Amino acid sequence: MSFPHRHLLGIEPLAPADITTLLDLSDQYVDLNRSARKHTETLAGLTQINMFFENSTRTQASFELAGQRLGADVMNMAMQASSIKKGETLIDTALTLNAMHPDLLVVRHPHSGAVDLLSQKVRCAVLNAGDGRHEHPTQALLDALTIRRAKGRLHRLSIAICGDIAHSRVARSNILLLGKMENRVRLVGPPTLMPARIGEFGVEVYEDMREGLKDVDVVMMLRLQRERMDGGFIPSEREYFHRFGLDTEKLAFAKEDAIVMHPGPMNRGVEIDGEIADDINRSVIQEQVEMGVAVRMAAMDILARNLREARARERKVMA
Amino acid sequence: MSFPHRHLLGIEPLAPADITTLLDLSDQYVDLNRSARKHTETLAGLTQINMFFENSTRTQASFELAGQRLGADVMNMAMQASSIKKGETLIDTALTLNAMHPDLLVVRHPHSGAVDLLSQKVRCAVLNAGDGRHEHPTQALLDALTIRRAKGRLHRLSIAICGDIAHSRVARSNILLLGKMENRVRLVGPPTLMPARIGEFGVEVYEDMREGLKDVDVVMMLRLQRERMDGGFIPSEREYFHRFGLDTEKLAFAKEDAIVMHPGPMNRGVEIDGEIADDINRSVIQEQVEMGVAVRMAAMDILARNLREARARERKVMA
Amino acid sequence: MSFPHRHLLGIEPLAPADITTLLDLSDQYVDLNRSARKHTETLAGLTQINMFFENSTRTQASFELAGQRLGADVMNMAMQASSIKKGETLIDTALTLNAMHPDLLVVRHPHSGAVDLLSQKVRCAVLNAGDGRHEHPTQALLDALTIRRAKGRLHRLSIAICGDIAHSRVARSNILLLGKMENRVRLVGPPTLMPARIGEFGVEVYEDMREGLKDVDVVMMLRLQRERMDGGFIPSEREYFHRFGLDTEKLAFAKEDAIVMHPGPMNRGVEIDGEIADDINRSVIQEQVEMGVAVRMAAMDILARNLREARARERKVMA
Repeated sequence: MSFPHRHLLGIEPLAPADITTLLDLSDQYVDLNRSARKHTETLAGLTQINMFFENSTRTQASFELAGQRLGADVMNMAMQASSIKKGETLIDTALTLNAMHPDLLVVRHPHSGAVDLLSQKVRCAVLNAGDGRHEHPTQALLDALTIRRAKGRLHRLSIAICGDIAHSRVARSNILLLGKMENRVRLVGPPTLMPARIGEFGVEVYEDMREGLKDVDVVMMLRLQRERMDGGFIPSEREYFHRFGLDTEKLAFAKEDAIVMHPGPMNRGVEIDGEIADDINRSVIQEQVEMGVAVRMAAMDILARNLREARARERKVMA
Repeated sequence: MSFPHRHLLGIEPLAPADITTLLDLSDQYVDLNRSARKHTETLAGLTQINMFFENSTRTQASFELAGQRLGADVMNMAMQASSIKKGETLIDTALTLNAMHPDLLVVRHPHSGAVDLLSQKVRCAVLNAGDGRHEHPTQALLDALTIRRAKGRLHRLSIAICGDIAHSRVARSNILLLGKMENRVRLVGPPTLMPARIGEFGVEVYEDMREGLKDVDVVMMLRLQRERMDGGFIPSEREYFHRFGLDTEKLAFAKEDAIVMHPGPMNRGVEIDGEIADDINRSVIQEQVEMGVAVRMAAMDILARNLREARARERKVMA
Repeated sequence: MSFPHRHLLGIEPLAPADITTLLDLSDQYVDLNRSARKHTETLAGLTQINMFFENSTRTQASFELAGQRLGADVMNMAMQASSIKKGETLIDTALTLNAMHPDLLVVRHPHSGAVDLLSQKVRCAVLNAGDGRHEHPTQALLDALTIRRAKGRLHRLSIAICGDIAHSRVARSNILLLGKMENRVRLVGPPTLMPARIGEFGVEVYEDMREGLKDVDVVMMLRLQRERMDGGFIPSEREYFHRFGLDTEKLAFAKEDAIVMHPGPMNRGVEIDGEIADDINRSVIQEQVEMGVAVRMAAMDILARNLREARARERKVMA
């Protein structure tokens, strides 16, 4: 099993084979998590630190459970109320943590690129749990695993990503991953919520939901991130739902067996009709959460293997 | 050891034999917690999630320690600052958690019935750590264990529950439990702090502390929950202590060997005189805290057994 | 290995041999933390509770990691939002915790002496993680370990402690420790930031940085604790840096191989020039953090041994 990366900072540096390697291992962890004894000692003797500079109960919980089930010593750092207030720089925080000898560092940060920067200052493996509008690689991987398990493959699918794409690192990581695996990706939403240089992505763009959803295999709804909108167009919830919210009528344009996804937490009645979210024949929203724990276990497992090998090599060189 | 329940949502559904089963097992955990090595692997491989929608340092700590000492992977979810803010419904939060495959879910919620509702949506065992004014079953069980150990029995005792009964789920669960075990329960306090349909409880009601405490075996004081009082009668602390606070003079009306209880945290000088709280011949307030960890270990142990058996049966049916 | 203390409340009660014992054991934990498997079962079966009445992300993290790596069941109590608000006294909180049978209690408190008081009410070992302006013993021990490893010895060194000494428990514990080990300690800073009864400490006092740093082996900078200053002289940051901040020009007065220390978090450009902080030939600031985890592991290990022995003796007496 080869995964030639020290960190998981984004989807961008990954090759299709890397993605397949991660998803194959994730499948094994799905089985473990469904079994009677969901605990291994894979990461025993290693330290995982979760540093969330932005609140995210569910992502942090997913990483925390993943590490605990792998037998790591897991520590959450509450970064909001902490040293930041005391005027410490991100780099100093990183160096401080590094000196405590963590093996896996899971970081969420409001600024794009902050996690990359941090990864250059530490000797451990870093996992990006979301940085600004940049990347959220484990979310894209869990979405990919969910799609692959529901559709039986992760290529030549037609996938619509709908809604607030401009503010979404989830969208960005998904576009990159789905493109690498040779799927057709459509972005659907109001022009004001589309990213600036959309031409770079190699995607089709639709303003009309019915056109955008026509014959797709996967409908991926996004959260309306009002908290990230600074000025500009902020639609009313009613108006937004009417034009871009997923309801039965709009979903009928997709393929009959199309699946519906949402990264959560959902705004029912804003991006998505509650009935569709709860329809176990269409919605795979709960599966996404389940896959999240498994994908994070796989990513931490594989990065820890690389770390151990790198350290063993270093020791040999020094001996 | 039979305990025919999937969840521990309240005292109401429990039979006297269920209560005895739980308390007998709790006694064993008291011994473990007093021993040199207070750790087992009873819940190894299982995941416990604590979801506190209301702050409660001590109850959460008690459940967390209980799970850790039983070898579970224990995770606290900080629910205040989290998804709730982002507009997620309780049910969505429950389904999200459920997808992470917890085995034991410990929930405190400000609304009566919220924990029952949640338990219907998940596949794991749910423990109610307090819901609104409804129930707080582990508090009643730890009180029962404390009484049984102090008095040598848990029946035919005369027990006065005093103070702010209207706002107290602790009182409600205790009234239910002590009634089931055939004790005589008296409620003592101002009529404004009595629950509305008091006739249903099969208890005697007193407005005068001296009359109410006359010849009782157990004096159970309650916390004055000013934070739960919305309008209506709010007594001054001085006035309250004078009429309803437990002091030496009032306590003298109880039996000579009567024990004094309080669920904590105490308002010294409001509900209870500090000297009585500290009198090791009368007060069992610290014992209550100690019993709390043991009772929670017992409850989680027994629910985990049932869960494992149910899952093993399911697997057989499917095979 | 003898360490005749039940608690670690301060440096004051320690004999030089106690300090050496702790540092020798700490060296072993430095090696463990640098190894491939940084986990032992030394504290398995024991419960560690961290009670921080003052926020301190890095000190709490250091103690938490230390306990996890020693195999303890570790629990953090969030004391800010908790029972304190509900009016519970420190003593009641201590008694409540004590009833949960912790073995190691790590306490930080804003009031000098609060940790000592608390230690008298509990049956477990207490570690002071900082109390008011009084003591912060593990910080002084980690500083001592850092010095001993950098300089090869911990006696007959000339050490300048610089800056806001009046508000610093770090300074106080360091002065005590370094004095016990027969070093020459100088305090350097503005008279307004010097402690009141400075004569008691047996130190030299300088107002001028250049004179104070002349030929010292160790330059120990302190954090400017604006948050602790109530009225009186509060210097502007620029003015402070000009007179008391460590820069290349001032550092040139120290010995050529002098090391630079800071307990963190740093105010770059206030107490210390960023370039000096990052100069791996002079700064041992990251090493201090690393030593912190090791020293805390050693302290908890040694106190747990004493606790086990004391309890075994008690059992024998009772048998």
